[in-house]
Amino acid sequence: MQNKAQIALQKFMAQFGELTAEEQQQIADNLIVEAYPKGKLLVKAGDVCRYCYFVLEGCLRQYKLADDTEVTIQFYTEREAAVDFNSYVNQVKSESYLACLEDTIVIEGNLEQETDMYERFPKLQQITRAMMEQDFGKMQEQFSRFIASNAEERYVYLLNNRPDLLQRVPLQYLASYIGVTPESLSRIRKRIQSR
Amino acid sequence: MQNKAQIALQKFMAQFGELTAEEQQQIADNLIVEAYPKGKLLVKAGDVCRYCYFVLEGCLRQYKLADDTEVTIQFYTEREAAVDFNSYVNQVKSESYLACLEDTIVIEGNLEQETDMYERFPKLQQITRAMMEQDFGKMQEQFSRFIASNAEERYVYLLNNRPDLLQRVPLQYLASYIGVTPESLSRIRKRIQSR
Repeated sequence: MQNKAQIALQKFMAQFGELTAEEQQQIADNLIVEAYPKGKLLVKAGDVCRYCYFVLEGCLRQYKLADDTEVTIQFYTEREAAVDFNSYVNQVKSESYLACLEDTIVIEGNLEQETDMYERFPKLQQITRAMMEQDFGKMQEQFSRFIASNAEERYVYLLNNRPDLLQRVPLQYLASYIGVTPESLSRIRKRIQSR
Repeated sequence: MQNKAQIALQKFMAQFGELTAEEQQQIADNLIVEAYPKGKLLVKAGDVCRYCYFVLEGCLRQYKLADDTEVTIQFYTEREAAVDFNSYVNQVKSESYLACLEDTIVIEGNLEQETDMYERFPKLQQITRAMMEQDFGKMQEQFSRFIASNAEERYVYLLNNRPDLLQRVPLQYLASYIGVTPESLSRIRKRIQSR
């Protein structure tokens, strides 16, 4: 496991090309890398998020309870940051759950460490801002696409753009993510396959 | 109009409390403030977004066309940044339209100016990162709420949390934003009023 984590961490650090090799090493030495088993619940609704999780390998699922039913609101895979941002940044209660859908290796960041890192490596400010801009753009696109499409269109989008998710994620979670019952999703799949 | 813009700009600059008054003034002197009339289309789908709009006063509506029907994906009011982020940051074509729902005063930022400002005022990096974190958290919350709720719940949420929008935004746009026809929204409103 440690080896896998090391390789994943090296890939991650490659993004920080603007930093010197020495700076990269210093940052890597300070990062906390953890491995969690499939099924592990990292955050419960009502918790204040202490950590921001950056996925090195694996898959996390974020969900809410609506009338006692789990509604999947997001999946996070390799090189994506998973967190209830409002809870993490403002230290208020999270409204969602975060669980490991697979055995997952993450970098665990926390606010104190972030502040410390920005002071020691000011260039990190710009790098994380650029990363956040990309994440922001992605989420905005997902959100607007979600509003402007129906369940079948959402499924076709995943099929074309996130085929990995369709392989990795159990049907019931995919269904709740695109807003239908598992039975409806099965019908959508059949309809598409028969075309 | 110029006076109104000045006052709105001063309010905006008050957020930059970590900067000295002189730095604040220098930044304010460099910002481009524009006033646009109600109905003005700022971005068309297919355009590459050159500007990021920060609303000082007024209301912008972002929408997509789905089967020739306008679907509202976001409203932006005072102290909110309006942009197709992916288009702006990566200089690719926008998938959405951005129009003035009211007479609107905005700060117009562009990438070159941003880069220049960060170089001249490094503290801005941290300030804008913090602002972006807040916006990110807000969007994540909106998105997850949208997925996990039905049209009536979405309307009740707006009623409790964004009553200003219900006053400012015509019924048909509100309806498309929460994912129903104007007729359905009227029925939802009557149902809620009769409780």
